[in-house]
Amino acid sequence: MAEQKITPWEVEVVSTDETPVAIDYDKIINQFGCEKFDQALVDRLEGLTNSSPHYFFRRGIVFAHRDFNHLLNEMANNKSFYLYTGRGPSTKAMHIGHVVPFLLCKYVQDTFRIPLVIQMTDDEKFLWKNIKLEDAIKNGKENVKDIVALGFDPKLTYIFSNVESSHRFEKNVLKISKTINLNEASKVFGFNMSSNIGQIAFPSKEIAPCFSSSFKFIEKEAICLVPAAVDQDPYFRLARDKAKILGEKKPVSVYVSLLPDLKGVNRKMSASDPNSSIYLDDSQETIRRKITVHAYSGGRKTLEEHREKGGNIDVDVPFEYLRYFLDDDEELEKYRSGYTKGEITSKEMKEKCIAVIQDFVSKYQEARKKVTEEDVKAFMDINKF
Amino acid sequence: MAEQKITPWEVEVVSTDETPVAIDYDKIINQFGCEKFDQALVDRLEGLTNSSPHYFFRRGIVFAHRDFNHLLNEMANNKSFYLYTGRGPSTKAMHIGHVVPFLLCKYVQDTFRIPLVIQMTDDEKFLWKNIKLEDAIKNGKENVKDIVALGFDPKLTYIFSNVESSHRFEKNVLKISKTINLNEASKVFGFNMSSNIGQIAFPSKEIAPCFSSSFKFIEKEAICLVPAAVDQDPYFRLARDKAKILGEKKPVSVYVSLLPDLKGVNRKMSASDPNSSIYLDDSQETIRRKITVHAYSGGRKTLEEHREKGGNIDVDVPFEYLRYFLDDDEELEKYRSGYTKGEITSKEMKEKCIAVIQDFVSKYQEARKKVTEEDVKAFMDINKF
Repeated sequence: MAEQKITPWEVEVVSTDETPVAIDYDKIINQFGCEKFDQALVDRLEGLTNSSPHYFFRRGIVFAHRDFNHLLNEMANNKSFYLYTGRGPSTKAMHIGHVVPFLLCKYVQDTFRIPLVIQMTDDEKFLWKNIKLEDAIKNGKENVKDIVALGFDPKLTYIFSNVESSHRFEKNVLKISKTINLNEASKVFGFNMSSNIGQIAFPSKEIAPCFSSSFKFIEKEAICLVPAAVDQDPYFRLARDKAKILGEKKPVSVYVSLLPDLKGVNRKMSASDPNSSIYLDDSQETIRRKITVHAYSGGRKTLEEHREKGGNIDVDVPFEYLRYFLDDDEELEKYRSGYTKGEITSKEMKEKCIAVIQDFVSKYQEARKKVTEEDVKAFMDINKF
Repeated sequence: MAEQKITPWEVEVVSTDETPVAIDYDKIINQFGCEKFDQALVDRLEGLTNSSPHYFFRRGIVFAHRDFNHLLNEMANNKSFYLYTGRGPSTKAMHIGHVVPFLLCKYVQDTFRIPLVIQMTDDEKFLWKNIKLEDAIKNGKENVKDIVALGFDPKLTYIFSNVESSHRFEKNVLKISKTINLNEASKVFGFNMSSNIGQIAFPSKEIAPCFSSSFKFIEKEAICLVPAAVDQDPYFRLARDKAKILGEKKPVSVYVSLLPDLKGVNRKMSASDPNSSIYLDDSQETIRRKITVHAYSGGRKTLEEHREKGGNIDVDVPFEYLRYFLDDDEELEKYRSGYTKGEITSKEMKEKCIAVIQDFVSKYQEARKKVTEEDVKAFMDINKF
């Protein structure tokens, strides 16, 4: 038996024995009341784009949604939509789990040529973590460069710091705040008597960008599509609940499953434990060491047993990383079935994982080096729209 | 017996019989834990300014304070200080009760030539009242003109709307918010499960201007002096509690008693009942009618009884208004003692009150007519400092 805790600030499956238990995504769908992202939706998306959707869709990494069917209907009628996602700059360096929703955004932006707004929740990190406000802002500025390096279109992408720029939609923040009472906020977010008053008011700031009226440059009738990690769903569920009374369109959300921690598939990668995370600025050697030493393997205790019974693919972290970062479906399947049959060893699985992650990170670091202060200015300049 | 309720949003003495009971200010001092503004302080102020302090001080209208002694010490050492007060624009028209803290500010600004910041809490009114945000902002803009008409020095006075400009001290708002948990906020402000999350976060916005670092144009070492209606004390008590941990100087506050409602001395003038309030835009005839018809009199039932026993000055609203608006001490004393002895009738008391209020309002209206949009811009331009 295992118990799952999922809130915007905590994600973990507590297992009663020593074996990590993977996060049960059907249980999350059930608990949160969102919908499963099924094959029919993938097929509809393929029909609409006339090409195979991103492997995040094909592999069930995008596993849940709210109202994506409705968005597909609107898209089929050429209605406009825009993307909204965010980043909480708790640390200076982002890890490879943080980039997943951004890679999804990039795919959607490239495919449909639509605006993307990215909220840096420096205020949230200050309010929740033991961190100075000035450091949260500074981390945010570094993270903006990390995000820019992923290759978004500067003409279509607006990145903003909550501390510095959320006053631009202060009116919406106030209107949203008036519709949420403490009772509701406590139920949705688990606030209690020791929550600080900034935390209690924060949800309105994450909700506001779901409404097109928060941005002058977004068309009034545009629907908001939020690609996010599933732990952020409480915000978007509440945004949908409040849309009607605020005269706004309900946002649509798609949720990616959480890239697991190196040490086990039972929790999401956390930036606070360096041995559990692979950072975007890790060296090739560090990546090799972390995966070799720390990555939880689903392999058997002896090579003999492994060859005989096969590995446990469900809890194998290196294979999970291949699901997220190896884009070749055939190769991925080769590793899956080979491992399950015991033909591919844990060591071989780790070696493949190391090669794929090293390749991703090294290409990323090349792009990151080229990001200039001018690029940052261009992405953060609200006036360009 | 009477029970007093005083919060930032409600002020009333509930009397158990029909006679209004005046607000017991010693009880407020005791309940709030502030200090009485005694004659020794008035004398010290007189010594420091080499002239008789404003009659608000002489008559005990300034009846309580926090740490004013300390401010006098600092002033004696030529330390700098600045003034901070506010206005909640719940209605388009301000009433004569609203101007009392502003008149006090004007006296202090004129005497010491120091900066004054005035916060328009349009956000607060939206969050608490059944009013549209756009209307709260619009009321605020009208009220700015009402305040400008009181004759502040535009070079030394900065008026700002919370909705439009409080982001300029957003960092302080966040830092303050992190130090206040729900438990403390609920105790101080009476929040409960039906409070909206905007209300719960609001106190940080009223507290922030108490700290000099919230304004670029205020000297870093300057102490904040807040002249306010006493019902706002919870904010400034909390500001003082948090100053040390935030590395700020504790604000000093002086509290004016609450100009009573026309219908009785048991509650403060409320803008929501037109027959209980005299507005700054009331005509001379309206003022006469309201005082004649609605002002609660401490006079006896018959003229004969009045001549014999004298009037009850403690609950006489017209006399109370004279205390606030008649600057001639001798004349005021003549009305007080004459009324108490039964020599001055209720009608004569009301006539004097009508004349004094009509004179104040008519002079005010002349000044209000001259306020231009350019004046407003000058007072709201943060860049001029």
